[in-house]
Amino acid sequence: MKAAIFNEPYSITTGSRRDPSIVERTDAIVRVVFACVCGSDLWYYRGDSPFQPGPIGHELIGVVEDVGADVRTLAKGDLVICPFAFSDGTCPHCRHGVTTACQNGGFFPSANGDGGQGEAVRIPLADGTLVSVPGSGHSDEMLRSLLTLSDVMGTGHHAAASARVEAGQTVAVVGDGAVGLSAVLAAKRMGAERIIALSRHQDRQQLAQVFGATDIVSERGEAAIEAVKQLTRGIGVDAVVECVGTGQAMETAIGIARPGSTVGCVGVPHGVELPFQQMFFRNIGVQGGPAPVRVYLPELLEDVLAERINPGRVLDFETDLDHIADAYTAMDERRAIKALVRVGSV
Amino acid sequence: MKAAIFNEPYSITTGSRRDPSIVERTDAIVRVVFACVCGSDLWYYRGDSPFQPGPIGHELIGVVEDVGADVRTLAKGDLVICPFAFSDGTCPHCRHGVTTACQNGGFFPSANGDGGQGEAVRIPLADGTLVSVPGSGHSDEMLRSLLTLSDVMGTGHHAAASARVEAGQTVAVVGDGAVGLSAVLAAKRMGAERIIALSRHQDRQQLAQVFGATDIVSERGEAAIEAVKQLTRGIGVDAVVECVGTGQAMETAIGIARPGSTVGCVGVPHGVELPFQQMFFRNIGVQGGPAPVRVYLPELLEDVLAERINPGRVLDFETDLDHIADAYTAMDERRAIKALVRVGSV
Repeated sequence: MKAAIFNEPYSITTGSRRDPSIVERTDAIVRVVFACVCGSDLWYYRGDSPFQPGPIGHELIGVVEDVGADVRTLAKGDLVICPFAFSDGTCPHCRHGVTTACQNGGFFPSANGDGGQGEAVRIPLADGTLVSVPGSGHSDEMLRSLLTLSDVMGTGHHAAASARVEAGQTVAVVGDGAVGLSAVLAAKRMGAERIIALSRHQDRQQLAQVFGATDIVSERGEAAIEAVKQLTRGIGVDAVVECVGTGQAMETAIGIARPGSTVGCVGVPHGVELPFQQMFFRNIGVQGGPAPVRVYLPELLEDVLAERINPGRVLDFETDLDHIADAYTAMDERRAIKALVRVGSV
Repeated sequence: MKAAIFNEPYSITTGSRRDPSIVERTDAIVRVVFACVCGSDLWYYRGDSPFQPGPIGHELIGVVEDVGADVRTLAKGDLVICPFAFSDGTCPHCRHGVTTACQNGGFFPSANGDGGQGEAVRIPLADGTLVSVPGSGHSDEMLRSLLTLSDVMGTGHHAAASARVEAGQTVAVVGDGAVGLSAVLAAKRMGAERIIALSRHQDRQQLAQVFGATDIVSERGEAAIEAVKQLTRGIGVDAVVECVGTGQAMETAIGIARPGSTVGCVGVPHGVELPFQQMFFRNIGVQGGPAPVRVYLPELLEDVLAERINPGRVLDFETDLDHIADAYTAMDERRAIKALVRVGSV
C-alpha cells in the first residue's frame, strides 16, 4: 500500500509499505477514506520535536476491512471515525473519561506500526477506539466534518471543557489554527455568549466569526492582553482556551483570564514555563492535555450528523496521498489552515 | 493599645500603638477577642519572605466597637468574624466569588495600619468584610471554631473546592498544618469517601483521623507517591489538596493525582516550578490561591454553629498578647499546630 513517510525534517514522501493485517484478536484493519495533516505533525516536520523516520499521521475516517476474532461492535464495511489515540474503553482511566491515559492504549502512529496518512491502518483495541457512523450516502461536506472528529473538533471541545466554559460566559480563544477555530465552535456550542478570538490572519478571523466569535483581537503579547482587558472593562474573561502551546501564547492566556478562572490548554507545550506566582495570587488555574476525543465523539457526532455544527470548514486545502508533501508545505507556510488528504472512497 | 510588633526575623514583641479610629465612612473598629498565628506568618518570622517592621497578624474574631456613618449591616456590640482580606462584596471580582481579588480590597495588616494580633483593629469596607455571628453566650470551644473561619477553615475549604472534590471521591491532602487538617475536614464535609492524609507527625495524624482521614501516609517525596499509588491500585487519587507551598509538596501532589484530576493549592508558593509537561501529558490541572474565605463564611458558619464541624481543634496551644512571642516559637518549633492568642472577652 501507499503511505506518507517522514524521512527527516522538511522531507515527507509517498512510500510503499506492506499492507497491515490483524495482529491481535482485538484489532481492526481500516481502509482510509480521508486523512489529514495536524498542527502537531508540523512540530516534527519543522524539526522542533524528535520523530522516528517512518509512517506519520493520526487523523482518519475509513471503512472497516477486517476485524479480529474478539471484535464485537464493528463489522466489515462500517464507516468509522478513528481518534488520534487508541484505548480499550474499560480501564480505570477510560472509565474516568481520560482515554488518552488508557492503561492499554497508545498513540498513532508509533504504537501500531502504521500512520494515519496511508491507504490502510491497523487499529488496536478496535471496539474501544473506533466509532461507527450511522447511515450511508454521506455528502463530501459531511465526511469532512466527520474527519475533524478524529482530532481537532474533539481537541477544541476538550480545551473548552478543560476551561470549564459555561453558558452565558465571555470566553477568549488564543490561537487561530484548526484547533483554535474548533474551540470557538465548541465554546459557541456550549453556550458562550461572547467569544473573543485572538487571530492575526484575515481568513481565519472570518472563519472564527462564522463559528461564533463575536470579537477579534489581532494584537499579540502585551498589546493583546491590553485589548482583551479593554473589551472586558478591565476584568478579563470568564474562561480562556489556549490552543498554541508556546510560552507567549500561555502568557497571553493567563494575562487575560479573570481571577478565579481556568485556562484550558491543548497546545502541546514547547518551552512553556508557567508563572505560578502570578497564577496563584490571581486564583487562575491551568488544566488540559491530550484530548480524550473518544469520550466526546458520540455527542459531537450527533451534532455533526444533525448539521448543528460544521467543523469540516477548517479543511481549506486538499490533495491526495501522492501529493502529501504539498499538504505539509501549505500548512508550514500558513497557506492552509488544515489540509485534507483524499485517500479512498466510502 | 497593645499589639504584636514584628521587629525583624525571629523577633516579635508586644508593643504599644495608638488606638485605631474610624478613617473612612465604611470602616468599623473591632475590639479583638481571639487572634491567632498563621502558618504564613512564619514565612515572615523565619525571614523567608520580606515583611515591613510593624504590626502583624490577620486572623481574628471580636466585638464591634464603632462603625462609620455608611456602615449598614453591623452594630456596636456585634460579635464578628473577620476574614484575612477585606473586600467590598460588590465589585465584579467579589460578585464572581473571588473576594481576595476585590478591586477595592486588600490584605491585613499592611493595608489598614493595624495587625490582627492586637487589642483593636480598623476594618475597612466593614459591610463587605465582616460577618456577624448570631446568638450569644457561645462557649469557649465554639469561639475557637469561629476563629478558624477567619482563615484556616475557609482556606482548607478553598483548597478542596479548587481541587473540585466531589462526594464519593478519594482525596489526598498534602500538608498537616492547620490548613491541611482543615482541608481534611472540608473534604469530609464535601462527601469524600476516602481521605489520604500525608502527615509525618503523630499528633497531627491523630487529628487528621478525627477530622475524617481514612488513611495516613507518613512518607515524603518519591516514597509518598509510591505509597499513595499502592493505596489506589496504581491509579492515583481523584483530587489532591496541596497546603504547603514548597516545590517538593507540589511535586508530590502532582505525582499522586490521577489523570484528569486537579490539584487545589493554597500554600503560598515558595520556589515552586510547575512541571507543565508532566501535568499536560497526564491532563492534570492546578488551581488555587488566596482563599475567598468571605464567600464561604456563611455556609461554614452554619455548620460550626450547628456543631457539625469543630475546626477549632487545630488550636492546640494558647497564650495571651503579652506572650505572643511564645506563640511564634511554639509554631516555629512545630510544638504547636496553631496558636490561639487570647486578647479580650466577648
